[in-house]
Amino acid sequence: MQKTDVLIIGSSAAGLVAAATAKTSYPQKSVTVLRMKGKTLVPCGIPYAFSTVEKTDNNVIPVEGQFEKLGISLLEDKAVSIDRGKKECRLESGETITYERLVLATGSVPFIPSWLKGADLKNVFTVPKDKAYLDKMQETLKNCRSVVTIGAGFIGVELSDELNKSGLDVTLVEKLPHILGKAFDEKTASKAEEILKNTGVKVMTGAGVKEIKGTGKVEEVLLDNGESIKADAVVLAMGYRPNTGLASDAGLPLNEFGAVKVDEYLRTEDENIFAVGDCAEKKDFVTRKSIGTMLASTACAEARIAGMNLFKLSLVKTFSGTISIFATALGEDAFGVAGLTESRALEEGFDIITGEFEGPDKHPGKLPGMKKQTVKLIVGKEAGIILGGEITGGLSIGELTNALGFIIQNRMDINAVLVSQIGTHPLLTASPAAYPLLKAAEDAAKKKMGLCSC
Amino acid sequence: MQKTDVLIIGSSAAGLVAAATAKTSYPQKSVTVLRMKGKTLVPCGIPYAFSTVEKTDNNVIPVEGQFEKLGISLLEDKAVSIDRGKKECRLESGETITYERLVLATGSVPFIPSWLKGADLKNVFTVPKDKAYLDKMQETLKNCRSVVTIGAGFIGVELSDELNKSGLDVTLVEKLPHILGKAFDEKTASKAEEILKNTGVKVMTGAGVKEIKGTGKVEEVLLDNGESIKADAVVLAMGYRPNTGLASDAGLPLNEFGAVKVDEYLRTEDENIFAVGDCAEKKDFVTRKSIGTMLASTACAEARIAGMNLFKLSLVKTFSGTISIFATALGEDAFGVAGLTESRALEEGFDIITGEFEGPDKHPGKLPGMKKQTVKLIVGKEAGIILGGEITGGLSIGELTNALGFIIQNRMDINAVLVSQIGTHPLLTASPAAYPLLKAAEDAAKKKMGLCSC
Repeated sequence: MQKTDVLIIGSSAAGLVAAATAKTSYPQKSVTVLRMKGKTLVPCGIPYAFSTVEKTDNNVIPVEGQFEKLGISLLEDKAVSIDRGKKECRLESGETITYERLVLATGSVPFIPSWLKGADLKNVFTVPKDKAYLDKMQETLKNCRSVVTIGAGFIGVELSDELNKSGLDVTLVEKLPHILGKAFDEKTASKAEEILKNTGVKVMTGAGVKEIKGTGKVEEVLLDNGESIKADAVVLAMGYRPNTGLASDAGLPLNEFGAVKVDEYLRTEDENIFAVGDCAEKKDFVTRKSIGTMLASTACAEARIAGMNLFKLSLVKTFSGTISIFATALGEDAFGVAGLTESRALEEGFDIITGEFEGPDKHPGKLPGMKKQTVKLIVGKEAGIILGGEITGGLSIGELTNALGFIIQNRMDINAVLVSQIGTHPLLTASPAAYPLLKAAEDAAKKKMGLCSC
Repeated sequence: MQKTDVLIIGSSAAGLVAAATAKTSYPQKSVTVLRMKGKTLVPCGIPYAFSTVEKTDNNVIPVEGQFEKLGISLLEDKAVSIDRGKKECRLESGETITYERLVLATGSVPFIPSWLKGADLKNVFTVPKDKAYLDKMQETLKNCRSVVTIGAGFIGVELSDELNKSGLDVTLVEKLPHILGKAFDEKTASKAEEILKNTGVKVMTGAGVKEIKGTGKVEEVLLDNGESIKADAVVLAMGYRPNTGLASDAGLPLNEFGAVKVDEYLRTEDENIFAVGDCAEKKDFVTRKSIGTMLASTACAEARIAGMNLFKLSLVKTFSGTISIFATALGEDAFGVAGLTESRALEEGFDIITGEFEGPDKHPGKLPGMKKQTVKLIVGKEAGIILGGEITGGLSIGELTNALGFIIQNRMDINAVLVSQIGTHPLLTASPAAYPLLKAAEDAAKKKMGLCSC
């Protein structure tokens, strides 16, 4: 029988951040992380292991030395059940470990629809956060010439781009009208699609998959429209589902997405058990509804909050709901989003105006490497509060999206944005006189003014 | 006798933004910009005209067509006096023009200390926002081999870097212990200095200039310590002074920096006259004292605010004081700052703690082009509010500094930052588990906690 004050189940980003925060917040408590065998991968870096950084060994979180230095115990084992009454966890090795507080950071698993025939053929892969699996997959792909990626969320898109760079003949199949169609409004999604096509990836949108065919090994992918695509391998990037067997076996309630229900302190129904990351319920910051978004950065925010609240709740350290903030890049072009998109805002019944602007991301525009930057803001019509936005441009828009994130999280309105100061520099940002984020706010303000004078 | 509703004096960034905002906010009002002869330069782009974009013609704000489209009149003339009683302005051409509201955007002029002997020699230059002057200067420098830049503020540093790139033998002389020593704390300033030295620019710090010597034309620069530097040309980058002759002749009060006194709506003592940009008084966002900072981005914020308040004041559209936010770059390394630095905070008597973190700006760290990113936060000890920060790293820190700017302007405290969501992507940002901005907040929180438990 082992004993720990804080037990963290799971050692991907959320688990590690929860552990580090717990130890920082409560140095006198013992903290143990239950981890799977093998090295922990940088989750968002997985696609890049297939070409840009060459192999998963170049994409690992350096856990070992660092966590020992912090005084955190790493235990290589697997939880098989939780006894909430006794506050103990039974492990695959036969051991049990007791806890004062338990943090579930069990993550998510790739989703394979039950209707999809042929998903069990050889050379059909998913994209789990599992180094051994991915290493084998990469080995196999080295002997392939053509691959079909199914699903054009950001994992499918980034992986297709990387597999294409690695020399494979890649076809990306997506049933929505555009790649990244859930994350972005049509204009941004189309722009990303154009850029991906220009890299040489074949993109088939509005195309549902019917079946994967082959004798033993995958040979072709059949589409709903009757077309078929020959392929040596298939990658299923059809989303992920919360990994919550352990939680539900322990009687913890799940929500409609299968995620463990949590409050704003990240506590489950059991006040001694917290859940963070992909396995935990997320509420949308704006709609206040449950949402299925899974992002490492959101997971880390939740993990920090859980870690701080384990033994001492604090109202100023709560999770206010996910703004689903993320960015991706294709070559030198990048795409960011935070909060509601226009289409989701309308779908949800928000009364909105939008503000848009396009201009050079350096100034003067003649500077080498200049890219057009576009900002689109989604603004509540009544109070003028920024509900969301999309940004496209060069690589600087990753952090610009974070500036937008702070605007949204502070519930700033267009006036507050219009009177804000930004720092500008020829080589680093757009011009102060035509800074797209401010000009988009101005565009929204103009529309709001026009509406008022009616 | 001409007539306009809004008269803007000055056509650099602040004047143009004030004009555009005035026309947008009050479409029924006529707006006239009084501009100097010749094209308007992108102010922050001026150093880059000397090498990266080759010439000032590649660094102009495209005013003509755009302003006509907006319905704004451009008048090429110079104001010689203002009659506040009659609300009219007399012009160099002999014309007069009446106004309902006047906006002074007369900018600043390079500062030459009166004690500096030899500043009138041939081949001694300053850096005004004057295309004809700069073109002549560039022509002259083409026939020079060596140049001494005096003053290592960001203009002096950026210009030295560019002149060095253009093939000149450049020595930068600064009387403070480090380049950029007013903007950054010592550690950041030293880092920038190392990088500038590595480009080949000779940097002499802690070195006061005594005299510029030569017969007709500059030949050498004498330093306080007795050393002398041979030079074919000298560039004085010793700061700027508000250009306020017109305002003070009209009886408008100036502050201790010689800037036109204004309130938070950017109104001067005369409610019909506003002042924006380098010629206008600035209060510091944190210290609430007057400050001499001059930045195009601050100027544009003031111009937007003045433009919106011209005929109808709004409490939600006021200027809350400058956070002196800016960034600069040397090659692939960049440096940003917003709000108070540690040294200024201590000087002013603030009771502070700092939080610091250094980590890769991409994740995994093996990604090509990875730079170390450092964030240092200055935090008020009592309430934990972020008063300022410094960021160094690759080119993405320009926009990251803007994220920090929104944190400061929203008066966020360390807890608010710790529970914030940021978006991360391998190629665009640091890792979500070790995002330097959040880790620096964590470091500050840890120190605050340590202090509390005493």
